[in-house]
Amino acid sequence: MEYETPQFFRVIQYAASADRDVVDMVSGSPDWNPPDSLREGLHEYADADPGDFQYPPSVGLRELREELATRRGVDPQQIIVTNGTGEANHLAMAGGLDAMPGEEIILTDPVYPYYAGRANHLGAETTFVPVTEDGHADPDAITEAASEDTAVIVVNSPNNPMGVTYSADTIERLVRVAENNDALLVSDEVYDHFDYAGRFESALAVDSDHRIVTNAFSKSMAITGWRVGYAVFPDPDGPNGNLLDEARTRHMLTNVTGSRPPQAAVLHALRHTDPDYYEGVRDLLRERIAAFTDALDAVDAEYTEPEGAFYVMARFPGFSGTFESVERLIDEAGVAGMPGEAFGEARADWIRFSLTTDRVETAADRLVEFFG
Amino acid sequence: MEYETPQFFRVIQYAASADRDVVDMVSGSPDWNPPDSLREGLHEYADADPGDFQYPPSVGLRELREELATRRGVDPQQIIVTNGTGEANHLAMAGGLDAMPGEEIILTDPVYPYYAGRANHLGAETTFVPVTEDGHADPDAITEAASEDTAVIVVNSPNNPMGVTYSADTIERLVRVAENNDALLVSDEVYDHFDYAGRFESALAVDSDHRIVTNAFSKSMAITGWRVGYAVFPDPDGPNGNLLDEARTRHMLTNVTGSRPPQAAVLHALRHTDPDYYEGVRDLLRERIAAFTDALDAVDAEYTEPEGAFYVMARFPGFSGTFESVERLIDEAGVAGMPGEAFGEARADWIRFSLTTDRVETAADRLVEFFG
Repeated sequence: MEYETPQFFRVIQYAASADRDVVDMVSGSPDWNPPDSLREGLHEYADADPGDFQYPPSVGLRELREELATRRGVDPQQIIVTNGTGEANHLAMAGGLDAMPGEEIILTDPVYPYYAGRANHLGAETTFVPVTEDGHADPDAITEAASEDTAVIVVNSPNNPMGVTYSADTIERLVRVAENNDALLVSDEVYDHFDYAGRFESALAVDSDHRIVTNAFSKSMAITGWRVGYAVFPDPDGPNGNLLDEARTRHMLTNVTGSRPPQAAVLHALRHTDPDYYEGVRDLLRERIAAFTDALDAVDAEYTEPEGAFYVMARFPGFSGTFESVERLIDEAGVAGMPGEAFGEARADWIRFSLTTDRVETAADRLVEFFG
Repeated sequence: MEYETPQFFRVIQYAASADRDVVDMVSGSPDWNPPDSLREGLHEYADADPGDFQYPPSVGLRELREELATRRGVDPQQIIVTNGTGEANHLAMAGGLDAMPGEEIILTDPVYPYYAGRANHLGAETTFVPVTEDGHADPDAITEAASEDTAVIVVNSPNNPMGVTYSADTIERLVRVAENNDALLVSDEVYDHFDYAGRFESALAVDSDHRIVTNAFSKSMAITGWRVGYAVFPDPDGPNGNLLDEARTRHMLTNVTGSRPPQAAVLHALRHTDPDYYEGVRDLLRERIAAFTDALDAVDAEYTEPEGAFYVMARFPGFSGTFESVERLIDEAGVAGMPGEAFGEARADWIRFSLTTDRVETAADRLVEFFG
């Protein structure tokens, strides 16, 4: 499986050059507004003194780390602020592969392609464990797959591309698999604010020296281009305390530090954003989910019940999940999704639709017309 | 030589906890204002549509790359916008070490410690070539040191820590050394706007498939914390075209993309900043250089003639360049510099002073009193 270059671009370009109007349900970039307080924070920063424009600490602005530590119930020392979840996952995966005895990275199938691309680039062996029929990570199958050769297990809940939220029991079992094999669980929780079932549980709830939690404000504040993320490392005085030291060094020698303007604005927004903002976005997405799944029901499509993130994975009767199928859907139905085969083999017949457009109803109508 | 963790912090912390007032001449963070247009650009961006807050292209905003390409006389395709010069140097050094046949990285002595730290972290063999007596890279000595085992040569002009600007002839000879050994010259030109001798020449002036030029707006726009840099790669259709492809992949899998708010603001500032801004900053620094070197002359200190960047390397009679000496200077003179030994062995007896404070005259007076 070749993941070196994510293939989103191929579909986006095809859709952009189509002869007809196309509803773009490809990318995971929110189309809604950030909190007002985020814009305020950036305006305030733009007028700051020259000293505030210079290097923040390599690990991130102190007050931001303290704010995050309080919210996550950890020590500020355990946190490195990163260039989005992308760098947080890079530090966690590269560091885990170096520090843990094994050489293998276990991923789910389907998988967010960046995890697989990064694992390949790091030279790891990769093992893909198919999700359960209802789209969740399968702790039994992962337990069976894991061995002393396993260095890292990467999971993502709420999940892209499946649109599900793993149970607390699943998360706990995954941490235990990592512990039992002297491996590291990397839990990417970037969609934590998009949990419609109320079941989300952070891996931080499971006390362990064998897990790193990664996150960012890309989705929760609708700013995928701002690149403010973070990773929470195990206790620096515990048996895997070296993971933090190694990641600090890697971060410093790769990026020196993250960008300060967005860190300052995110800090302001964390302090001044009402919970109503997040609830409002969830309500918007619940409406989109309802409109879209009504259409899927109408054409007898199979789909995974959307519980989290903002994706719907669906399979249409007699219609595959290849790039060719997706291109046909663009040309003939005017709806662009991501081919299931871009995420692995287990759901290669499926198509992922991102609910990040205000034209979900139009897309739903078009799919009903096309498949109906 | 151990460079894993830059040692600036040790001196900065010592100075901060001193019992007396200390003039901080340690860090390389400008104390002057950015161009007004940069603040304007950030304000403008803060009011943008939600779509402008999402992922820019992984290689950077198209218009920024076009603006840079026009200014540097290259194809926009050759440019990757990075998280500061830090990431640009990381991509260039890691990529060069992978792609070129050798395993060695050649650096100058004294050296900016991040280059050495990064070379160590990448597992390269390192060779340090002492600078000439007047503080310049020594093309003869580098020619002699280079061999088929050399993968990368890293230079920096205008130079940190020496405060000199290499001649066009030196730059051309360094490119040829790289060519003759199937190696890569990485030319870090982040101080290009701080050339007092009018002699600065970019390595881009030497046509070659064996050089990568790195740069950023950290110093020229006084925003070390904003992290907008770039690297210019050889012709993608030339014999070392793979360097660009590899760096795009590494950048994508490490950072996904750089932060968009500072890219947007820098683009605005590039379009709307008068050359007077840069000349004004140079005039300010010329005044500081004069005040500081007058004091050095007064106490018979040896120093390298400041031609570029914003550092002065000096040696006081009977006074070494160790951490202990620097700490004594903090306690007894109230002036903090960086110990020469932090940059290597060749100038271990020297101390580097950064002219990034409006209290250079105070520092000068104190040094005259202490050493006079």
